[in-house]
Amino acid sequence: MAADPRFHRAGAALTLAEAAAAAGGELVGGDPARVVSGVGPLDGARPEDVSFLDNRRYLPKLAETQAAAVVLGRDFAGRVPEGVAAIVVADPKLGFGRVARRLFPQPAPRPGIHPTAVVDPAATIGDGVEIGPYAVIEAGAEIGAGCVIGPHAVVGEGVVLGEGCRIGAHASLSHCIAGRFVVLHPGARIGQEGFGFSVTPEGRFETMPQLGRVLLGDAVEVGANACVDRGSQGDTVLGMGTRLDNLVQIGHNVKAGRACVLVSQVGIAGSTVLGDGVQMGGQSGTSGHLTIGDRAQVAAQSGVMSDVGPGEVVGGSPAWPMRETLRAFAALRRLAGRPASKA
Amino acid sequence: MAADPRFHRAGAALTLAEAAAAAGGELVGGDPARVVSGVGPLDGARPEDVSFLDNRRYLPKLAETQAAAVVLGRDFAGRVPEGVAAIVVADPKLGFGRVARRLFPQPAPRPGIHPTAVVDPAATIGDGVEIGPYAVIEAGAEIGAGCVIGPHAVVGEGVVLGEGCRIGAHASLSHCIAGRFVVLHPGARIGQEGFGFSVTPEGRFETMPQLGRVLLGDAVEVGANACVDRGSQGDTVLGMGTRLDNLVQIGHNVKAGRACVLVSQVGIAGSTVLGDGVQMGGQSGTSGHLTIGDRAQVAAQSGVMSDVGPGEVVGGSPAWPMRETLRAFAALRRLAGRPASKA
Amino acid sequence: MAADPRFHRAGAALTLAEAAAAAGGELVGGDPARVVSGVGPLDGARPEDVSFLDNRRYLPKLAETQAAAVVLGRDFAGRVPEGVAAIVVADPKLGFGRVARRLFPQPAPRPGIHPTAVVDPAATIGDGVEIGPYAVIEAGAEIGAGCVIGPHAVVGEGVVLGEGCRIGAHASLSHCIAGRFVVLHPGARIGQEGFGFSVTPEGRFETMPQLGRVLLGDAVEVGANACVDRGSQGDTVLGMGTRLDNLVQIGHNVKAGRACVLVSQVGIAGSTVLGDGVQMGGQSGTSGHLTIGDRAQVAAQSGVMSDVGPGEVVGGSPAWPMRETLRAFAALRRLAGRPASKA
Repeated sequence: MAADPRFHRAGAALTLAEAAAAAGGELVGGDPARVVSGVGPLDGARPEDVSFLDNRRYLPKLAETQAAAVVLGRDFAGRVPEGVAAIVVADPKLGFGRVARRLFPQPAPRPGIHPTAVVDPAATIGDGVEIGPYAVIEAGAEIGAGCVIGPHAVVGEGVVLGEGCRIGAHASLSHCIAGRFVVLHPGARIGQEGFGFSVTPEGRFETMPQLGRVLLGDAVEVGANACVDRGSQGDTVLGMGTRLDNLVQIGHNVKAGRACVLVSQVGIAGSTVLGDGVQMGGQSGTSGHLTIGDRAQVAAQSGVMSDVGPGEVVGGSPAWPMRETLRAFAALRRLAGRPASKA
Repeated sequence: MAADPRFHRAGAALTLAEAAAAAGGELVGGDPARVVSGVGPLDGARPEDVSFLDNRRYLPKLAETQAAAVVLGRDFAGRVPEGVAAIVVADPKLGFGRVARRLFPQPAPRPGIHPTAVVDPAATIGDGVEIGPYAVIEAGAEIGAGCVIGPHAVVGEGVVLGEGCRIGAHASLSHCIAGRFVVLHPGARIGQEGFGFSVTPEGRFETMPQLGRVLLGDAVEVGANACVDRGSQGDTVLGMGTRLDNLVQIGHNVKAGRACVLVSQVGIAGSTVLGDGVQMGGQSGTSGHLTIGDRAQVAAQSGVMSDVGPGEVVGGSPAWPMRETLRAFAALRRLAGRPASKA
Repeated sequence: MAADPRFHRAGAALTLAEAAAAAGGELVGGDPARVVSGVGPLDGARPEDVSFLDNRRYLPKLAETQAAAVVLGRDFAGRVPEGVAAIVVADPKLGFGRVARRLFPQPAPRPGIHPTAVVDPAATIGDGVEIGPYAVIEAGAEIGAGCVIGPHAVVGEGVVLGEGCRIGAHASLSHCIAGRFVVLHPGARIGQEGFGFSVTPEGRFETMPQLGRVLLGDAVEVGANACVDRGSQGDTVLGMGTRLDNLVQIGHNVKAGRACVLVSQVGIAGSTVLGDGVQMGGQSGTSGHLTIGDRAQVAAQSGVMSDVGPGEVVGGSPAWPMRETLRAFAALRRLAGRPASKA
């Protein structure tokens, strides 16, 4: 359960006082000078680990934990067993994440260009950039300071990456301007031609030139094997902080605002616009040319076929306001003879 | 909004007369000698650009456009503002695409084999082929004239590509015979072993050798990270002109006819047969061993579990004729207390 | 229809007696010394081929077959046409697969490290390993005897592969311990950071360090472009023999038992636990933190949102016991005015 040192390099150990400070919380009980060096879940933590509790369903595990300290909310601070310290915070998951990050720092870039990387002379490489084996950086590309480009990644002609981006193994970018701290997970595909064509009178498909770009805001993250197509005459845009999980599809000309969360296998059809903070559950999808308002929430597997207003919560396929969808499920359940006590 | 010259290389400028000819349309108003050099959407076009109108909902944008000319249908030709020429065509999107292609020609192959490409001596490379960095061409592969093989692409043993194919970065092909002008977008996976196994009496899975191939007709296009498995004893076949969007899955032994359109994240289970011109909306799927007739249309997110006749339009999961599916949704809506005026 | 020798290398021919022995069956009729060298479907088999029948719907094809012998169950043994031998087995598909495997042996590894492969000096390579062009093996990786690493594959720092694994072109592994005979199809992504983050009081997303691993049991197979994320504090685990089809997504901390079958485009959300022998149909999905019991069956496109007991069969979205789901569909059908004779 502890972080396997085969894969995860620990940084310096911390005292409980330092751990509490990292978490932004208050140490209650425990020796502030006691040393911790790892993290683990409640039921797997060792005496040198810090753990966390963010859901009352795990209280039984809290009672049995061997962790040195547990990051948790004030409500449960009194429930820690004998010999275990509490680190009291407003948001246990966030606080614990910060302790974990202090104990296991993100590996820093190892500046340098692998001898096998192909870097066009007309590309610009910033300070402290790490470029891995067999990466390909094409003419006119601009790689910002401190970027990490993984093995086999392809950064296409003219692509711009702001500082601190991390491009995973086998990812590919073309026709893209990315801000700072953008993360592409392995196999992500950015900037390729979207699905745009006309039908000739003879019935042949004729591709419409896709003359736009992809714009990725600061801190955008794109999951493994996810795909973001470039625009046709304008741009496909993902706003600052937006995160796409694995295998997500973003069609051409889509605009997403800031801090949107698209869970795995979501599909957004072309020209749909998402506001800020839109959340889409796994395997959900939208038709094209729709508007999904700020902070709307779309349930997993939903099929959104009409506009959704700001803050609305929708579900089902076609997607309706959740209240109506739940009533529809309840009605279906009655028709199916299913006990009312089940979901 | 204009095509960013960082990514899109403009060809020679055109006069309005030449643009109209490229579009296959009639120039109405405007100086035939006026020069245009770019394209853009109605609300982003500059005075040197051509734009298009293919939907009356954009008429307000037409009224405000700064474009030199707008490609549109006869019905709206009289609505172009002062100083803007009309290029009148039957199909504005098709006509505009042709102007765009003249102004931004598809980059021609740059013939030559990158020094880092690994090309087996027993592979055959046609005239004018471009092979990019770290591409791998295995023994017995035959690459037709004018093909473009992107960085890191793998063309497996014995694979045949007709002339003019474009294989995107990181794509891989094995066990495949492809016609002319086939396009694989980045990360497409063609020819791998399909999902075929038996269960032994002891409960182990034993793979069934997949001894077939993938046959791709002329002008087939496969989206980014889409997958097409080879046949088990026969072939998996995509007919001429068929296009798969990103993240589509084609199971072993599937046969698709000509000019089918499978939108992103569609899944076709093994041995299902699609006729010509079948259209499947995003995230829809079919069971295996079905027959979907010519020009059938399957709505997004549908689950097809029984045969569909030619020209039928189906939707829902399980998929029914759309008329019935819409009645079912209407009935559900009433049961849910949802206003009849909503979709 | 026969295995194309361009792609499939035949081994030695067999006598019918040897073929029957390979199938584990009884030769009925036919000359035991007759030689067969290939396989094919009933309607495409040539006189030197073996075929099989595993479904009565193909009896008309059996009547017309030109195969030398057909692997089939005892019920149909008397139905083989004149001049065609029967190889009688309990499981025709399994038996036929074994004949096919004898006639077309899996290509053996060609031991050796391609000169272009980048193998870290601190990696350990077992006997008889084949490493292809541009593969990257990072420090501390341990590759077991007889593994085959395809072109461009990346085996990350510290990754352990048991003997006999086959890693497809462009696949990538990090943070992973794999058993023996694990198969990754092209483009599979193992071990990347999962979708885990907190939201700061300012509304920013802050990544939760993902300090776990992926554990793959013996004989696990992962489809093309499928993704398996590593655990956050614990591990993501796929039990022995479990198979994932193409484009499947496994979220962080998921535990799957032995011999599970996840068809293409399935998505399992984080921390869900699958027992042994769970079967999930194409495009189905589960929420997170659920328990799906041994040998449960989930229909294609289902959305599982609550626990499923061992042996249960569920379908629909939300997924209910299949009996109830079918009643719900029947009720909907009546409401939609759809004939009762249709599915």
